[in-house]
Amino acid sequence: MEDINFAVLGTGGIGRRALEYSTRKDGLTPVAACDRHGVAVDHDGLDVEELLAATEGNIASEARRASTESGEQGEPRTDGGAVAVKQSGERKGVAASVQADSTETPIDDIIAESEAIDAVLIALPNLEHDFIPRVADRFAEADYEGVLVDVLKRSRVIDMLDERTEAFEESGITFVCGAGATPGFLTGAAALAAQSFVEVEDVEIWWGVGLKSGYEDNRGTVREDIAHLDGYDIETARDLSDAEIEAIIEDHDGRIEFEDMEHADDVLLERAGICDAEDVTVGGILDVRSDEKPTTTTVSVTGRTFDGEVGTNTFQLDDATSMEANVNGPALGYLKAGVRRNRAGEYGVFGPADLMPGF
Amino acid sequence: MEDINFAVLGTGGIGRRALEYSTRKDGLTPVAACDRHGVAVDHDGLDVEELLAATEGNIASEARRASTESGEQGEPRTDGGAVAVKQSGERKGVAASVQADSTETPIDDIIAESEAIDAVLIALPNLEHDFIPRVADRFAEADYEGVLVDVLKRSRVIDMLDERTEAFEESGITFVCGAGATPGFLTGAAALAAQSFVEVEDVEIWWGVGLKSGYEDNRGTVREDIAHLDGYDIETARDLSDAEIEAIIEDHDGRIEFEDMEHADDVLLERAGICDAEDVTVGGILDVRSDEKPTTTTVSVTGRTFDGEVGTNTFQLDDATSMEANVNGPALGYLKAGVRRNRAGEYGVFGPADLMPGF
Repeated sequence: MEDINFAVLGTGGIGRRALEYSTRKDGLTPVAACDRHGVAVDHDGLDVEELLAATEGNIASEARRASTESGEQGEPRTDGGAVAVKQSGERKGVAASVQADSTETPIDDIIAESEAIDAVLIALPNLEHDFIPRVADRFAEADYEGVLVDVLKRSRVIDMLDERTEAFEESGITFVCGAGATPGFLTGAAALAAQSFVEVEDVEIWWGVGLKSGYEDNRGTVREDIAHLDGYDIETARDLSDAEIEAIIEDHDGRIEFEDMEHADDVLLERAGICDAEDVTVGGILDVRSDEKPTTTTVSVTGRTFDGEVGTNTFQLDDATSMEANVNGPALGYLKAGVRRNRAGEYGVFGPADLMPGF
Repeated sequence: MEDINFAVLGTGGIGRRALEYSTRKDGLTPVAACDRHGVAVDHDGLDVEELLAATEGNIASEARRASTESGEQGEPRTDGGAVAVKQSGERKGVAASVQADSTETPIDDIIAESEAIDAVLIALPNLEHDFIPRVADRFAEADYEGVLVDVLKRSRVIDMLDERTEAFEESGITFVCGAGATPGFLTGAAALAAQSFVEVEDVEIWWGVGLKSGYEDNRGTVREDIAHLDGYDIETARDLSDAEIEAIIEDHDGRIEFEDMEHADDVLLERAGICDAEDVTVGGILDVRSDEKPTTTTVSVTGRTFDGEVGTNTFQLDDATSMEANVNGPALGYLKAGVRRNRAGEYGVFGPADLMPGF
């Protein structure tokens, strides 16, 4: 396969790590990056080191949320916001890079260059759950032919993307959704583990995340997780102040256990034909006061073999592998798989399990 | 993706199970099958139940080996041979099916129909290690455009296939090699597990097979495994009589442990860019006197994450899943992945790990 040029929307934790990762992978060249402050494009390849230095400290914060609420809809906001963003003179975030220009229209600027971009990793926060689908709309309206990848977790976003299938097909977009750790890595593993069986009875996805030192970089993720707690949903979690989030964490002594999460894993496994959505359970433990994982991330797939035996295949991630590693490696792997589909003329919406071998 | 029509060369254990499996999978239609006795073709789909009943007892035996040595090169021989094959009047093997014709040229007969066949599973024994490559040659000479899949284990076959890459590309053949349990299922799992890491240090593949009731159906596999024992190689294992094999098994009390096997897993992981071949170890335990697995099949992938941690991700198959289940499910999964590549115009030789998402 030929080399892949890609762009990153957002330079928070995930976007920055994608840039960093690309320097470790052959055949993957970052050619564009943006946040709400600026856009950097170089079709020969960005200077990642310089860009990472310039955008250091792009982390989620209340300031970003406030600015969103003040009506800056449709702007590409990073995981991070104005308060934390490193400034270089008057310029903030990506705009502080010598490779970048300040802009009011960063996504449009990326779209303007998109004919030479094979894939776009959308690493923007999605607190309004239609935000990423609306970003995709803009690419479709511009007749983008290429791959869009998100690392979201929520089933309802996938439904929204599905509604856009026809537009994606007309444009030539292969949208790979939920391509991070979970769904993503873990649903891919479930799809693979399912190959021993002719009938899958049960998929259990159980994750552990220790997020002490990574907490500042991953506030968006924590907020998303809180939306899965009893008494909260996406809307109420979005409206929480940082102080309220801290209070919730305090109430749980820093260690929050989640059961029966409404993660998209179930929908994504069903659409790939692995099992019924109702046979999938997702849960896990988040510890924001330790870097040690509170529990070992495990995928268990129970099924019946063609010869009538029932068994459980398992996939386990070492506790030493960080959430960040398990999001970004798979995201880029799925990005590549998406580019292959795109070049083969397969357009529409694909989940990670759809990109695995298997029936 | 559109439905897939496929053919099976050979109706020993693997071929028969592939036919059986196809009745449990949507979008997969068996349209042709052959052994050295006969060929059955129905482009609307074979009657699998009837064909399986007719070919019951097609198992590897000395008789087949003897007939090979007597010069019937290039004939598609099943895993089984004349002695064990069920007879229906004068007709043997596939030829005993009401859907089949007796033939002296079964592979040519399949090739003659191959324009309407998306994929061919080559489930023939490969005791001469160039046998399957030579079968592939015949498809290439006939300008077959489609997928060929084998479930072999040996590195040297892959080298031979690689030498044919140009011929495959000219013809339009996507050859998926080593697509059974190991390599295959387990190298695919290793490729997936590697996604946490930017650098893989070590892949350990360790398998357990309990083959008491499945022994008769899998003599070819046992013979192949013996070739990996100290003091044996492919040639000497091929020349062993059934009685000599029994004696070797007896010497080991029915339970043979293999270390540092020359399995193709290493080559296949290296070609997919996962790690160096020398960092891959394959071993396992075969127990032909118990259906219980003597050890749990486990893939361990140790690597370094982008953030500098070293960890080991693991994939384990439940002891209750049989070798047969773990060969045939993945083989058909990889067959489908191969068809997708083929339809996208990607020709040549692919290992299982090449078909996984990832860089």
